[in-house]
Amino acid sequence: MKTHLLSELGRRTEAPPISWLMATALARPQLISLAAGFTDNPSLPVEEARGLLKGILGSSQSGQAALQYGTTAGDTALRWLTAHRLHSLDDRPAARRAYSPDRVIITNGSQQMLYMITEVLCDPGDIVLVEDPSYFVYLGILQSHGVRARGIRMEADGLEVARLEEVLSALKKNRELPRVKLLYLVSYYQNPTGRTTSYAKKAGALKLLKQFEAAAGHPIYLLEDAAYRELRFEGEAVPSALAIRGSTDRVIYAGTYSKPFATGTRVGFGLVPEPVFTTVLRIKGNHDFGSSNLLQQLLARALASGIYERHLAVLRRRYAHKARLMQAALQQHFPEQVEWRTPGGGLYFWARLPRRLKSGSGSKVFKRALANNVLYVPGEFCYADDPTRPKPNHEMRLSFGSASEVNLHKGIARLGAVLRDCLGK
Amino acid sequence: MKTHLLSELGRRTEAPPISWLMATALARPQLISLAAGFTDNPSLPVEEARGLLKGILGSSQSGQAALQYGTTAGDTALRWLTAHRLHSLDDRPAARRAYSPDRVIITNGSQQMLYMITEVLCDPGDIVLVEDPSYFVYLGILQSHGVRARGIRMEADGLEVARLEEVLSALKKNRELPRVKLLYLVSYYQNPTGRTTSYAKKAGALKLLKQFEAAAGHPIYLLEDAAYRELRFEGEAVPSALAIRGSTDRVIYAGTYSKPFATGTRVGFGLVPEPVFTTVLRIKGNHDFGSSNLLQQLLARALASGIYERHLAVLRRRYAHKARLMQAALQQHFPEQVEWRTPGGGLYFWARLPRRLKSGSGSKVFKRALANNVLYVPGEFCYADDPTRPKPNHEMRLSFGSASEVNLHKGIARLGAVLRDCLGK
Repeated sequence: MKTHLLSELGRRTEAPPISWLMATALARPQLISLAAGFTDNPSLPVEEARGLLKGILGSSQSGQAALQYGTTAGDTALRWLTAHRLHSLDDRPAARRAYSPDRVIITNGSQQMLYMITEVLCDPGDIVLVEDPSYFVYLGILQSHGVRARGIRMEADGLEVARLEEVLSALKKNRELPRVKLLYLVSYYQNPTGRTTSYAKKAGALKLLKQFEAAAGHPIYLLEDAAYRELRFEGEAVPSALAIRGSTDRVIYAGTYSKPFATGTRVGFGLVPEPVFTTVLRIKGNHDFGSSNLLQQLLARALASGIYERHLAVLRRRYAHKARLMQAALQQHFPEQVEWRTPGGGLYFWARLPRRLKSGSGSKVFKRALANNVLYVPGEFCYADDPTRPKPNHEMRLSFGSASEVNLHKGIARLGAVLRDCLGK
Repeated sequence: MKTHLLSELGRRTEAPPISWLMATALARPQLISLAAGFTDNPSLPVEEARGLLKGILGSSQSGQAALQYGTTAGDTALRWLTAHRLHSLDDRPAARRAYSPDRVIITNGSQQMLYMITEVLCDPGDIVLVEDPSYFVYLGILQSHGVRARGIRMEADGLEVARLEEVLSALKKNRELPRVKLLYLVSYYQNPTGRTTSYAKKAGALKLLKQFEAAAGHPIYLLEDAAYRELRFEGEAVPSALAIRGSTDRVIYAGTYSKPFATGTRVGFGLVPEPVFTTVLRIKGNHDFGSSNLLQQLLARALASGIYERHLAVLRRRYAHKARLMQAALQQHFPEQVEWRTPGGGLYFWARLPRRLKSGSGSKVFKRALANNVLYVPGEFCYADDPTRPKPNHEMRLSFGSASEVNLHKGIARLGAVLRDCLGK
């Protein structure tokens, strides 16, 4: 009998690309990082958090409640406020049932919700459909669990629904449909491309998933990762998939207060239908039997007092401004052959080099960028290991979240010079 | 092909007994719960936390750092303080290497560390050796992962080392030793028995584990869960297993600041040797890429300022007092046939009824206790499903953590009356 110290999961789990990027950044203190997904430091709500925490800890009654264990699902007030907020964001007064506080679980960032959903639904060999490209940490979760990812090509307004149908049909033909558990969409200002999925496409995708349910033998869920939803600074608000009539029980919604309020709080949430809800709650009990009560009270008070909403308005103006700065720098410094679009929210630009010019971690472009003290996320990190297509290697994710205004401009100028140089030859 | 919606893990995961107990408690507002593992509300450090958070959020520099993402392993200062604290608690100045901050990972309570260790080491069918009885949430993690638990009988000062040897020998004979990954010990004021494992027994256990390593084909770790270590109010301090010479690379230490400071903060930690460290860190990246920075800064400041230590002294006196109250109530109200011992720390008494008197959730004792508005944790919940022995069903865990002084006395009086009544017949 061959024996191993580590579990199969332990042996499968690879070093995440982000840790390599962070180590690279730490080794060069002069580096301008356009890679980090960190939020803007100066706009963090320091005074607001101080005031709110002073209030919570200002009386022994509320202070003791905040410093004591809570329940596994989370603080009742925060669950209610979360459900209520989603309901009003979606502006669909008819479908109250979809936005019940009983469906809400508070988690450590939306990340923990993504992890638990994958744990309770997917065995090794199962299949999750993802956007091509997608959020690389989620791809890491799939890889770690031995789950196969199938990439669905994207257009400017989200995944190609016709392509989704092709992939589902092919899986049906190969009798692999029973292995398909989820379609994972980062539906707002996607990480990494900055694109937003239109409401029509979400509806189209859900319709398809339902159509193939019978052949799968079980529901295929739409896992909507709305991490960047609230960071909108341009364009119409798009309702979530929860608002789609008759689809309430097929949508799992993962959201967060970390990015729109303060990343250091790590408070996220999920809105989860049965029977997944009960199973996730048990797993959450095993993970940590509930997130920090103190942080939950902080967010509940921020929401209830209107401080959250006011801070969000400031944040949106701030990111709109930084996005415009990056846009101006890209216009000024990037060669014309590089394609990019200004996002309507979130933290990222996505730039496409001419196909012949590689951007990967082993490429000339990446190495020269590093030599010139500027770092980006190579696009290749954002593609699943999908054997049905070659992995694109000519794109880059550029974040305007954490770099200062001066560094945004400098970083893009340096990167532009590298690209011009590499393209010129 | 038989298809399932939920993963194997999802289907295996059972409702934890604690949620049933909590629902039972919520349904009866008049209930005195001696079941909850909550800590003492009036002694929570409300003012201390307010002052520390005011300091952190009092400058934009430290405030922004606390409200921003941190690193996956945790705050550098907190990791250093944690390593340093463990080193001085163990008082073994020679073995500095064992207490390196590089081995520390900050987690959401020690619970998350227990979860991740199990994830990275154990496949379904693997075996973990546990104390008999043991911490029921950890037994739930094992059950959820399809891991077989083997119970090792306990004595007053911890597991029976001779029994451990018997079990290991039997597993070797059956060629099952390669499946054994861990020995899990709740070594200080154990949940549920209140017993502390002596240093000699930890050393004896480690020696045995090493002896059987060759036949296992890999290390068998001692996972030391020290959650209650700092809540000592009587007796000598026992060093951790990290202090045992030559055993540094075979001990995984899980600790927490939640119980000794504030449960609402959910800040725990692990001290983990390679190659487990690297794998756990990757998994932590997938779970949540790092615990809340704000809470980590809070604990780092509490430790560095001495506030933590001063609070701990208060807490120890408080629990010593509550333990004496429960002891007095037990002496006064419990029948003589019931065995119990006063613990030297932690939150729990463990009471043994005469074997013929069942204490389980279906028993007459439990039902009558409930009818008299008092709740305890039935001992049966704390035993693994180990087919090699019948599950004891005549014990109860009684917590003096969260109940008020008045309710401690009342609760034990009511329970004593129930026991007298049941024994009398």
